[in-house]
Amino acid sequence: MKIDGVPYRSVWVDETDRSTVRIFDQTRIPATLDILELRTRDQVADAIVTMQVRGAPLIGAVAAYGLALSLRVDASDDAMERDAAFLAATRPTAINLRWAIARMLEHLRPLDPSLRVQAAYEEAGRICDEDVAQNEAIGRHGLGLITQIAGAKTGDRKTVNILTHCNAGWIATVDWGTALAPIYMAHDAGIDVHVWVDETRPRNQGAALTAWELGRHGVRHTVVVDNAGGHLMQHGMVDLVIVGTDRVTRQGDVANKIGTYLKALAAADNNVPFWVALPSTTIDWTVRDGVAEIPIEERSEAEVTMVHGVDAHGNPASVRVTPAGSAAANPAFDVTPARLVTGLLTERGTCDATEAGLLSLFPEHA
Amino acid sequence: MKIDGVPYRSVWVDETDRSTVRIFDQTRIPATLDILELRTRDQVADAIVTMQVRGAPLIGAVAAYGLALSLRVDASDDAMERDAAFLAATRPTAINLRWAIARMLEHLRPLDPSLRVQAAYEEAGRICDEDVAQNEAIGRHGLGLITQIAGAKTGDRKTVNILTHCNAGWIATVDWGTALAPIYMAHDAGIDVHVWVDETRPRNQGAALTAWELGRHGVRHTVVVDNAGGHLMQHGMVDLVIVGTDRVTRQGDVANKIGTYLKALAAADNNVPFWVALPSTTIDWTVRDGVAEIPIEERSEAEVTMVHGVDAHGNPASVRVTPAGSAAANPAFDVTPARLVTGLLTERGTCDATEAGLLSLFPEHA
Repeated sequence: MKIDGVPYRSVWVDETDRSTVRIFDQTRIPATLDILELRTRDQVADAIVTMQVRGAPLIGAVAAYGLALSLRVDASDDAMERDAAFLAATRPTAINLRWAIARMLEHLRPLDPSLRVQAAYEEAGRICDEDVAQNEAIGRHGLGLITQIAGAKTGDRKTVNILTHCNAGWIATVDWGTALAPIYMAHDAGIDVHVWVDETRPRNQGAALTAWELGRHGVRHTVVVDNAGGHLMQHGMVDLVIVGTDRVTRQGDVANKIGTYLKALAAADNNVPFWVALPSTTIDWTVRDGVAEIPIEERSEAEVTMVHGVDAHGNPASVRVTPAGSAAANPAFDVTPARLVTGLLTERGTCDATEAGLLSLFPEHA
Repeated sequence: MKIDGVPYRSVWVDETDRSTVRIFDQTRIPATLDILELRTRDQVADAIVTMQVRGAPLIGAVAAYGLALSLRVDASDDAMERDAAFLAATRPTAINLRWAIARMLEHLRPLDPSLRVQAAYEEAGRICDEDVAQNEAIGRHGLGLITQIAGAKTGDRKTVNILTHCNAGWIATVDWGTALAPIYMAHDAGIDVHVWVDETRPRNQGAALTAWELGRHGVRHTVVVDNAGGHLMQHGMVDLVIVGTDRVTRQGDVANKIGTYLKALAAADNNVPFWVALPSTTIDWTVRDGVAEIPIEERSEAEVTMVHGVDAHGNPASVRVTPAGSAAANPAFDVTPARLVTGLLTERGTCDATEAGLLSLFPEHA
C-alpha cells in the first residue's frame, strides 16, 4: 500500500544491511509515522509485547525475522530452540505467531548452523511474500461479496456501508490487510464504499489505525464508538460486517479483538452478513471449541484507565479516565461462536464457518 | 447518598435563597467535585445540553426548577409556555424531562401568575421528593432480586457479579439512583456484590461517574471497556445486568445509553438476567415501537474524537483519538427491544417488559 504515494510494506529488511528489521511504531499512529529499527531478538519481542507491532499476520512475520536476528548471534540448536520459544510466547492468542515460528524451525532444524542465518532471512521473506499474496487473494474474493451487495442495491442508496472492528488492514499484515483488503479493492474498482470504523477500546486500533489507513487511501469512513454498531444495524445503516481474526478454530469459532462477539450478535439479530477474513495461517486446526479452548490474553489495566491520543498541539498525550482507586480488567480478545459467522473469507475463497466448510477449502487438513 | 460522610442530593435549593439551584458539574467528576449555581432558565438549559447535569430522572427535576427560575422573571401565561417549551426541548430522548415540564404546567396553568413562583418551587420540590421515594422503592424491589441470586449461589462463589452500563446511580437521579439503588442496598445489607462498570464511551459516564459513586460508597467494582461484557458473560462472570433507561415504551422497549442493546443481546445469548430499573415517570405510554418511534439524539462528533480525563498532574485534560480529517458519528442512545429484557424494576415492583406486564403494575394507564 502507499503512504502519500510511496509504496510500503509493514515490515521490511534492507537487503544491503540485514542486521535491521524495520516496522512502523503502531503505538504512535496517527500522531506520527515513526519507523522502528529492530536489531535484536529482545527488541523484536518488546515491540510485539508493547504492540508497537501488532496484527495477527504481521506479528508472525516480524517474529520470523526476530528469529533470523537471534541466529546472527547464536545459530546453535539450543539457542535457536530457546529463542524460538521466547518469541512464540510474546502473545498468547494469535495463532499466526506460533505458526510462523514453527514453520521457521521446521525449515531451519535440518540445516547446519552455518547456513541458518541466510536460510532464516529467506524463509521469513517467503512468509512475508506469501502473506501479501494471500491477502491479495482474500481481497479479490471479498470484492466479489461487496460487488454482489452493491449490485443488489436499488434506488438512490448505492453506498455499501461496511462496519469493521479493530484494525485488520495493511498495517496489521505485511500488505493489503485481511478485512480491509476487499474494501480497498472495492474502492479502487469504483464501488461507493463507506466504512463504519469501531473505535476499538481500549487501544483504539480502529480510531487510530483503521481510520488513518482508510483516510490515507481516500476511502470514505466514519468513526463510531464501539457501542454504536447495534444501533446502526437496527436502522439499516450497515450492509456488511467484515472483521479480521487472531485465531479460527477447526469448527469455525473466531477469536478476535474484544467486542467482536457483540457485533456478531447484533449482526445476527438484524440479518446483517457477518464475515471474517483470514489467511489460512490463522486457522488452529488443533482446537475446536473457541470459547473453552483459546487462551485470552489479559493485558494491563492501564490500557483501560488511560487513553492515549494527541493534545491540542498534536503531541502524543494521555489522560486517565477512571477515578484513582478504581480497578480495571482488560481481556484483549473474545470468541465469536461459529453459529454467528455468516462465512469465512480466505485466500482460497469463501466457506461456511464450520469444519466441513473449512475442509472443503483446505482438504489437506481432513 | 453521602460523599465522604456528608449527605447530598443531586439537585437542591437553599431555602433561604431560592434564586439559586445547585447541582454537581458532572462533566468534572471524578477530577473534581464542583457545585454549579444555576440562576436562570438559560443556565439550566445550558447545563442540560452540555450534560453538566444528566440522567433521565435528574434532568426532569432540574428542568422543573428551571421553570421556577424563569417564572421569577416573568410568570405570565405566554412566558411560562415559552420557557416550558424551551426547557423541554433541551434533550430529545429522555421522556422524564417532558414529563416533569408537563406536570409543572398542569399544576401552574390554573394559578394566578402572582402565585406561580411559590407553587413552582413547591411542585419541583415534590417532583424531587417523589423521585427519591420511587428510587428507594426500586432499590428495595431490586434488593429482592439480588438476594435471590446470592441465595442460589453454592460453594465458594458467593460474590454476586452485576454488570451495569452508563450511570444510573444517585448522581443520575435526585437520590439513590435507579439501577444502582439495589446495588447500594445489597452492599449495605452485607451481600458480597461486585460491579462490572462499562466505561460507556463516548462520554465515559461509567468510568467517570459510576466508578466514582461506587468507590465513594465502598462498593467493590471493576471498570471494563464497553467491548468486554460479552466475553465476561460467556465465561460465567456476570450474574445479572441492571441498567437504567431514558424512556420505556408501552410495550416494554427500552431506550438507554448507546451500547445497552449490545449488552442485552449478550445477556440473552448467555442466559444472564437483564433487568431495567426505572421510575414510572420514564414510561412513555404514548409510544409502542421503540426502535421506530423514539427519537435518538445525535450529539457532537467531538465527543467521539476527543476523550476527556485528567493528566498526570490530576488536572482536566483532553486528547484527540482519531486522525485529523476522519469524520465521526455520535448517536447517544439505542433501543433494546422488549424481547431481550428479562424484566422491569419499578417503584411498584417488578414486571414483564410487555404491555400486560406494565399495566399489571400501572392499571391507571389501561
